[in-house]
Amino acid sequence: MGFEVIKTDSRTKARLGLLTTAHGVVETPVFMDVGTQGTVKALEPRDLEENGAQVVLGNTYHLMLRPGPDVIAAAGGLHQFMRWNGPILTDSGGFQVFSLAKMRKITEEGCRFNSHLDGHEFFLGPKESMSMQRVLGSDIAMVFDECLPYPCDRERAEKSVEQTLRWAKASKDQPHAEGQLVFGIVQGGVYDDLRRHCAEELVKIGFDGYAIGGVSVGEPEEFMYKAVDASEPFLPKDSPRYVMGLGVMHQMAECVARGVDMFDCVIPTRVARHGTAITRKGNVAIKAAKWIFDQGPVEEGCECYCCRNFTRSYVRHLLNAGEILGLRLLTIHNVFALNRFMKDMRSAIAGGSFAEWKEQIRKDTCHE
Amino acid sequence: MGFEVIKTDSRTKARLGLLTTAHGVVETPVFMDVGTQGTVKALEPRDLEENGAQVVLGNTYHLMLRPGPDVIAAAGGLHQFMRWNGPILTDSGGFQVFSLAKMRKITEEGCRFNSHLDGHEFFLGPKESMSMQRVLGSDIAMVFDECLPYPCDRERAEKSVEQTLRWAKASKDQPHAEGQLVFGIVQGGVYDDLRRHCAEELVKIGFDGYAIGGVSVGEPEEFMYKAVDASEPFLPKDSPRYVMGLGVMHQMAECVARGVDMFDCVIPTRVARHGTAITRKGNVAIKAAKWIFDQGPVEEGCECYCCRNFTRSYVRHLLNAGEILGLRLLTIHNVFALNRFMKDMRSAIAGGSFAEWKEQIRKDTCHE
Repeated sequence: MGFEVIKTDSRTKARLGLLTTAHGVVETPVFMDVGTQGTVKALEPRDLEENGAQVVLGNTYHLMLRPGPDVIAAAGGLHQFMRWNGPILTDSGGFQVFSLAKMRKITEEGCRFNSHLDGHEFFLGPKESMSMQRVLGSDIAMVFDECLPYPCDRERAEKSVEQTLRWAKASKDQPHAEGQLVFGIVQGGVYDDLRRHCAEELVKIGFDGYAIGGVSVGEPEEFMYKAVDASEPFLPKDSPRYVMGLGVMHQMAECVARGVDMFDCVIPTRVARHGTAITRKGNVAIKAAKWIFDQGPVEEGCECYCCRNFTRSYVRHLLNAGEILGLRLLTIHNVFALNRFMKDMRSAIAGGSFAEWKEQIRKDTCHE
Repeated sequence: MGFEVIKTDSRTKARLGLLTTAHGVVETPVFMDVGTQGTVKALEPRDLEENGAQVVLGNTYHLMLRPGPDVIAAAGGLHQFMRWNGPILTDSGGFQVFSLAKMRKITEEGCRFNSHLDGHEFFLGPKESMSMQRVLGSDIAMVFDECLPYPCDRERAEKSVEQTLRWAKASKDQPHAEGQLVFGIVQGGVYDDLRRHCAEELVKIGFDGYAIGGVSVGEPEEFMYKAVDASEPFLPKDSPRYVMGLGVMHQMAECVARGVDMFDCVIPTRVARHGTAITRKGNVAIKAAKWIFDQGPVEEGCECYCCRNFTRSYVRHLLNAGEILGLRLLTIHNVFALNRFMKDMRSAIAGGSFAEWKEQIRKDTCHE
């Protein structure tokens, strides 16, 4: 169990790695598909396998509220419940408590809040989060933290980082599932010295991996890279680094160039449900009138089930008619496309051409 | 191309048959899965194959409105558009014009109506229906008819049957797709002599098969069997008989005992979306609280993908959380269950035990 860097790029900080978990080995850089409520939306486990998914992310907050820990415990954990036998990473629930729920009170022990579903009152802190993640039986558990919003003033950021560090220590000290890796989360907002401080203190506590949190929360793109640049040098070279909530192709490539190994995002499944295809040449609105008679696949050359079998004309029809199959086919395509993208990235690193590849990605996918 | 009866039951009118179409041979009795808008809701062609589907039914009315004939023509027909290479039956659109659309005017040529989608004006009669079904390229086309409501007075029924017969003749006289079989439809409501008259006149025109229409439109169950009993004796023994819109297990068994070979219904896909599983022992509401911790499959002993892999507890959670995967898994189960049911029925006919099997089905599935 653990992480091994098998190659480092000569011109950037990009690395190829192998992350060994209780449910298999993950090739990094990796994009993790989000399965919020115990399913990657519209997909079955066999679809995930077929489309190159390596890790599924489960949301502790959502699963704690519904179906609740007792139901998942009865199944023997999240792997058994959803029948996904590959690696699972679970977040701590902190982000959702702060963004979705109605907060009642924050103490040293955690947060009292009302469920966004039915107003039912819950408590979530490091103890409860780690306990829930133990029930879920994830391969990688995340510490309970406070994800800072953007913008955030210095004073609030300072206080929050200290709270995050105390919660990180408390999370580490809880019992974990057998073989469960535990990752710390670097916070600190846009303040480089806070990022450094947080990273250094987390490393003192000692984790199996480190996330860079509070990224992709509405800040300008350059602040995203600044947060990574301010944190990464103070994280162990032999630990995996994970930027949470990021799934845009050129942004992931930029972060990999800065030493990041892992990503997750709802983008591929969410935009599919709105009729958007993710392609190697940027996003494509499949509902657009121009595809009405188009007999080509959603993405030329793509080898996913959707592109091997169906036309833009047909997928467009399904989306416009409100057919579930339309969003399912686009979800299949998008998941395949992002996983294929990461595979191409790993090949570029392996072949020594990552820097050029990254520039090409920017040219191809950023149409601003 | 055509129909062959390979065995007739000794104690009932049940038959085993083979219906040869341009896209393959269908074993009868058969249940046909409804793909209203160019997809059996939530399922892919590979799911249909995997779950024993033999024939997909396409709706002329829906496909004429959206995406429209030009889009399907551009794909080369409905088989190519939806990538289903098995047999397709298309209805005439008449039923939907009378039940869904806002009717403007009915003439000898057909109906002028406003689309239920956007109010756009369309015209559909025998000529337009057969033309659309030719574009769809279905293996079996249905004549344009008027489906009588229940109840319906004698005078209206008489007039309507004459109109249906004139439209049947006009439909037959239109050009059809290559290899396309054309079925007539017996109407006549609850009036046995009208049923007989309609059947006899249709046989004079001559069709590849005969539907018994206006069944399962809200009438008491005994009227359903009465309509079959009043029509069947006047239909050729060597032609397939089809009861439209029927998909309840014991009702299909009763109709088969009366000489019917084909059925279709939206039941398996529609009830799945409402959380109901169709099983050999009756319907089961999977959302019910009693399944919250249940680690058994949706139906014990079922070999569908859903039942081989997932628990009632998990499927219930997905349905309650509004996850698409929940209704997709139940759709897979229901389609499998009804196709398996028809396979069991064919085995019972083949083995000479159909009469007993039918009584067992009634006992097992009718809980009133």
